[in-house]
Amino acid sequence: MEKTEIPDIVVGRLPIYLRALSRMTLEGARVTSSHELGKKLGISSAQIRKDLSHFGEFGKQGTGYHIEFLIGKLREILKVNHEWEVALVGVGDLGRALAHYASFGDRGFRISLIFDSDPAKVGTKLNNFEIYDSARAGDLIKERGVTLAMIAVPAEHAQKVADELVKAGVRGILNYAPINLVVPEGVKVQYIDPVVHLQRMTFYV
Amino acid sequence: MEKTEIPDIVVGRLPIYLRALSRMTLEGARVTSSHELGKKLGISSAQIRKDLSHFGEFGKQGTGYHIEFLIGKLREILKVNHEWEVALVGVGDLGRALAHYASFGDRGFRISLIFDSDPAKVGTKLNNFEIYDSARAGDLIKERGVTLAMIAVPAEHAQKVADELVKAGVRGILNYAPINLVVPEGVKVQYIDPVVHLQRMTFYV
Repeated sequence: MEKTEIPDIVVGRLPIYLRALSRMTLEGARVTSSHELGKKLGISSAQIRKDLSHFGEFGKQGTGYHIEFLIGKLREILKVNHEWEVALVGVGDLGRALAHYASFGDRGFRISLIFDSDPAKVGTKLNNFEIYDSARAGDLIKERGVTLAMIAVPAEHAQKVADELVKAGVRGILNYAPINLVVPEGVKVQYIDPVVHLQRMTFYV
Repeated sequence: MEKTEIPDIVVGRLPIYLRALSRMTLEGARVTSSHELGKKLGISSAQIRKDLSHFGEFGKQGTGYHIEFLIGKLREILKVNHEWEVALVGVGDLGRALAHYASFGDRGFRISLIFDSDPAKVGTKLNNFEIYDSARAGDLIKERGVTLAMIAVPAEHAQKVADELVKAGVRGILNYAPINLVVPEGVKVQYIDPVVHLQRMTFYV
């Protein structure tokens, strides 16, 4: 499978499928269909079948998908069949909430390297992990080989932090700062900004 | 301007433009070009001009855009030229971080109606607003005419909460619970789930 062949929008739907399927197993289901899954997600069954067909044959006409099997396949495709270490830079209210967020663990991620530039926070513990001085982020990230990071610092510091992370080897950044980041080719950035989502809705409301 | 004529993906980029332009004014800029804006955002200048052309003529060939003027226009288009009241259901770590998030205020939103079902939290204050019992959400939302809400409750309660919100008149939901919601036609839902974003990156890393 050549990664470049898979449209980014298809890749973006896989985590949604994985999440819905995991939810189904929690509710006791063992088998599902593209029709049932589509109904839960507001996506057509044809779209789901087409998306999955990029990666192989996962279901059978008539019997549908074995949920556990499909979950395993999706985890493999998304490479979350093992746990990723994630660095977090910025321990404000949001950073704190992220560090405590229980849903990372069973979905492939662990925030295990935490940084802040506030001397009052450095050296204290958050969710059992020591908070390190942001000045050490580059060295520690390189040393630990961490490739994923979350940025939860004020907008005016975010680009500088991103530059340091990328230099240290980070290849995927989840950016909570309300600012677009400029990163080199090959580094992925995803953005979370509640205001952007709200403004997208007020246009229609 | 017929709203149905504007592609949803264009609407989705407007808040990003607005955010970048607001950032530019903070940095002292008064005029910009689609080229400069595009470079900051990793979007082509042609795309930006095309997106904006859906709504009118905002710049001049050669002189570019007056940033304050364009900000005003975008605020008008997105209807954030006035402040929206937002209800928040669920005061865990995340809900608390949202209530304290400073960036809502100057971007058109105020979390002013807060709910939780935990008796220990009900009646206490969060960011100067009283936390009400979730059982009263429907009545209070209707009474106040609130049309936007954020859901930050555990996944297993999110659909029920959404049903109540919609029944009370909510037309836009920002859902932080890691589950897809089923809502009637005409109600918008936007999702924020950090794991979905992380998994989208691990595919490539």
